[in-house]
Parts: sequence; C-alpha cells; structure tokens
Amino acid sequence: MPSYIQRLHQKVLEKKTPALVGLDPRFSQLPPSVIQAAEKRCSGNQHEIKATAYEEFCCRIIDVVAPLVPAVKPQVAFFEQCGPAGCVALSRVIQHARKAGLIVIADAKRGDIGSTAEAYADAWLAGEDPEAAPFASDALTVNPYLGSDTLEPFTRLAAERNAGIYILVRTSNPGAATFQDRESDSQKLYEHVADVVEKLAAESSNGNDFGSIGAVVGATYPEELAALRKAMPHTPLLIPGYGSQGGGASDVIPGFASGGLGALVNSSRGINFAYEREPYREQYSPEEWEKAVEAATKQMVVDLSSVFE
Amino acid sequence: MPSYIQRLHQKVLEKKTPALVGLDPRFSQLPPSVIQAAEKRCSGNQHEIKATAYEEFCCRIIDVVAPLVPAVKPQVAFFEQCGPAGCVALSRVIQHARKAGLIVIADAKRGDIGSTAEAYADAWLAGEDPEAAPFASDALTVNPYLGSDTLEPFTRLAAERNAGIYILVRTSNPGAATFQDRESDSQKLYEHVADVVEKLAAESSNGNDFGSIGAVVGATYPEELAALRKAMPHTPLLIPGYGSQGGGASDVIPGFASGGLGALVNSSRGINFAYEREPYREQYSPEEWEKAVEAATKQMVVDLSSVFE
Repeated sequence: MPSYIQRLHQKVLEKKTPALVGLDPRFSQLPPSVIQAAEKRCSGNQHEIKATAYEEFCCRIIDVVAPLVPAVKPQVAFFEQCGPAGCVALSRVIQHARKAGLIVIADAKRGDIGSTAEAYADAWLAGEDPEAAPFASDALTVNPYLGSDTLEPFTRLAAERNAGIYILVRTSNPGAATFQDRESDSQKLYEHVADVVEKLAAESSNGNDFGSIGAVVGATYPEELAALRKAMPHTPLLIPGYGSQGGGASDVIPGFASGGLGALVNSSRGINFAYEREPYREQYSPEEWEKAVEAATKQMVVDLSSVFE
Repeated sequence: MPSYIQRLHQKVLEKKTPALVGLDPRFSQLPPSVIQAAEKRCSGNQHEIKATAYEEFCCRIIDVVAPLVPAVKPQVAFFEQCGPAGCVALSRVIQHARKAGLIVIADAKRGDIGSTAEAYADAWLAGEDPEAAPFASDALTVNPYLGSDTLEPFTRLAAERNAGIYILVRTSNPGAATFQDRESDSQKLYEHVADVVEKLAAESSNGNDFGSIGAVVGATYPEELAALRKAMPHTPLLIPGYGSQGGGASDVIPGFASGGLGALVNSSRGINFAYEREPYREQYSPEEWEKAVEAATKQMVVDLSSVFE
C-alpha cells in the first residue's frame, strides 16, 4: 500500500488541483429540501433527523465533488453534535467518500496522552483493512498542546497503517495568537510546534520530498505561510481559511512547493452552502444547491490552478 | 438549576471526598469474565462486542462507586475506538452515571473554532433538558491551543446550561513540557493559559469562591500545583496523575482550597483495574473485580481524607 502522501499526491496530480472540500453540515444552513426529506424518511428524535439530513447532504456533496477534487474533510464536531446517530452518519459519510475514490481527512483535532492517544489514532486511521478502524479515514487532524510524546502514538499508528496526520501549527481564527504567537527562544510557539512537526515529517518521508505527517496552517497571514513552508520543507500543509474565512488564491500560493504539491487548500462553507451566496444564489434555486456546490468547486479549482505554474 | 460548581461541591461535601473515578475501559485489561459475557450477548462484529463489554464494565463500576464518590470521568477515546457502537455505549454509560446521582465529566479534550466549538459544546454539555445534549454530561475537558476566542463558545454554553468546563493547563505526561513550559514574558505557556482560565473562572463565579470554568492540572510537580492554586483562586482543578501515574495524596494536597473544596483528584486505571494489582490481586479473584474496584476506591477516599483537615 502506498504511503498517505503518495496516495494524496497521486490524486492531486490526477485531478490537477489541491482543492480540499470540507464537509461542515451546519443544520441552520442546510437546504430546506434536505431537511424536509430527512423529516419524511426518519421517524426518530431531533438528533436522528439531523443525522439523517447530514448524511444525505454530505453524501450528495461527495457525489458532486468526487470527479473534481482529490480529498474531502468531514468536520467531526457537527456529527458528534447529533450524538450516536451522528456517529453512525459520519462513518457512512467517510465510507461513501472513500468508495468514491476520495482521500478522507477526518477533522477531529484529537489529542491525549499515551494509550488514550493510541485509542484515538486507532479509531480514525484506516490501513490495509479499513474495517479495522471504525471511522476509517486516510488522515486525522491532531492537537499538539499536550506535548511531543503525545504525538508519538498518532505518528506511529499512521506509519504502521500508511495513514497521515495533520498537526495544528497555526490556526486561522482571530484569537489564534493568544498562545500560538507567544515568543520564547526567539521563536513563536507555533514555530516551535512547526520544528517538532517538520522533524516528524522528515522521519516519515523515507527520503522523499514530503512525509505523511503534515501541519494545519491558516492562510490568514501569507508571510507566515511562506516562512512556515520554508521552515517545514518535508511537511505537507493543510491550509484552511480559504473562501468564507477570508483568504484568496494569492494568499495560499506561498504554502506550495514547486509543481503544486505539498499543500491542500480547504474550503468548507463556501462550497457546502454556495447556494446561499452570490453569485450562485442568483443562478440557482435552493433546490439546485448541488449545482451551486459544483459551480463553487469548479471556481475554486480554477482559482487555485496557478499553483501548478 | 444550581451551577455546575454548586452541584459538584454539594456532592463533594455529601460524599466527603474529592475522589473522581475515571472510566478507562482498555480492552486488554478488562476482566476476562466481562469479555466472555459480551461475546455471549453480542452477535455483532469485534467493535460491537468491545462496546458491549465497555458499557457493562463501566456501568458496573458506576454501581460500585456511586455511593462512595461525587463524580466519574469517562475517557471518550476508548469508546470512540469502537466506532458508532462505542458512541452508543458511551451515551448509555453517561446516562447510567447521572441516574446514579454522579456528576459526569466527559474527558474528550475537544477544541475547535467558532461555530465548530459550539457544536462540540452542544454535544457534551447537558442543561435543564438532558435529552437536548446527545452525550449529556455535567462538564467537558477542553484543549486551549487554538486560542482564547475558541474557548468562548464552550464557556458561553456552559454558562447557559449550568455546566462546567475544564481547560487543559498543565498535563501530567512526561512530554508535557515540550510546549507547556516554553517561557515568554516571564511566564511559562501553561501559566499564561492559567491566567486566561482564571479570568473565565472568576467571571463564571457570580461572586462566589469558585466558578464553573476549571483547569486540568497534573500532580506531577506539587510545587507547580501549589503555585497554580494560588494563581487561580476561582478555578476548580481536575488533578489527574494520582495512583497509577505516580502521584500520591501528599502530591495533590497543594491543589485544594480550605475545607477540601476547589479540586477533584482522578484515578482511572488504579481503580478500574485494581483486580490486576497488589494488594487486591491477592485478595480477590479476577471474577471479584468489582470488590477490588470498591476496595481501591475506599482506599483512595481514605488517602485523600486529609484534604478536609
């Protein structure tokens, strides 16, 4: 089985785009037709109805974007919000995406110590036998606050299963600086985290350009992104903050190595709920929300095409 | 409905102990009789059998410890490791504990930005209507790395629902220092996190001694614990690392305010798997594992009784 980064880069080159579609099924923004269908089909409680709607919504997005992009990133929180029913829906969404040939990055931001971290890694990272991992994904996002020893179970299982890990380095929220920008030994905290991640990435690269241990790096400050790209030459990046969080294509270009590799750019709301925003709101009715998803995804692919130049 | 900290302190005074029993159902350590019973009762796959065993094991621990301690702390990772079946088991374990009159602290170490953080908070924090929260717990552990704005949805929902939050400040693992000890502006990172947490705790205290926003602080270094107790006068602490992680009663005493309030001391493996270790291994057969749980819990209560002096 090829390594995570080999599989990912193959898909990126095949689809000719580093666009990553986030799956963020916020209930308040779901197309009314999806909610109505779930209410008809599901006789359960409020959480079960929501979970039914989330599964339907995400699987239909997957069907639209599978020919267009290399990967999807389900946001675990929204499924967890529906409780056990949401967990069932999430596992089906993950399976549906993998069957559609997409790389799946579970955005769960997990982190814990020792054998507890190992339990999380075991839950999320698929290997040769995807049945073995209940939420069988190709990669998982991980929080580094607990320390480098707590990253080890994740990176070890990732190596064993040819899976990937994206460790939070610099997030894209307004308050990211609170702790991540604190400076010690002439570097900000996120730069120290980046050093640890790059070491793990290099170890996982087997002499290739990139490893399977990556970093989440927001596109809020392009200079930071450029500096991190340079400081982490073996580290594949996952760049959120594109589209609705304010970043544009020019902001993310510094995150790429030559040839358009080494980074994925995520858009969630901008694609999921394209039917609600211009220019798609004028072009498509709410019932045609999948057409808006398709148009927004194609637009993102065009916007990002300059990374291959 | 009384606030989280009022409910917690009432239980602590009622049971006369700050002992918190972690529920960490590691499969490899489960009593053989529990596994055999699950294999008989459950005709599903490996994950469903494990989830059945976890539910049985945790509910029986709850039945043993409910008369003895104020609170339990399910470790979410082990349930997540069993996938959707584990999520069902976890929700039942949480409900069972609450029905038994125990405070439930979900140890999930969640953290994300904006509306995603809100989704996690909504999933875990119960209020007047526990049906509304799928994994309806009294409190949740939260990771601060993403920044202070990402704590807001958690603390806001906690306030609305009279629930609690424990934010990771200083963890008890060997590598905790990697990032948590980095020094900037004359303070270590965990001390900066502590400042943010204390502010939130004070705001949530409504003029009382303690708020409902707490901190996870390992007992590895008693001097650190004493300094944090002083720096965070309104912050209830959750102190892991007691028992199997090496800490003893004298190590945790600095975490308490006068009268034995302001801290909970957690033991997970030391109680869950007491049947495997001395002196209980000699006194009880593996089938009598619940007696070992009871004896280890009672011993912990005795060990910690000095906090009330």
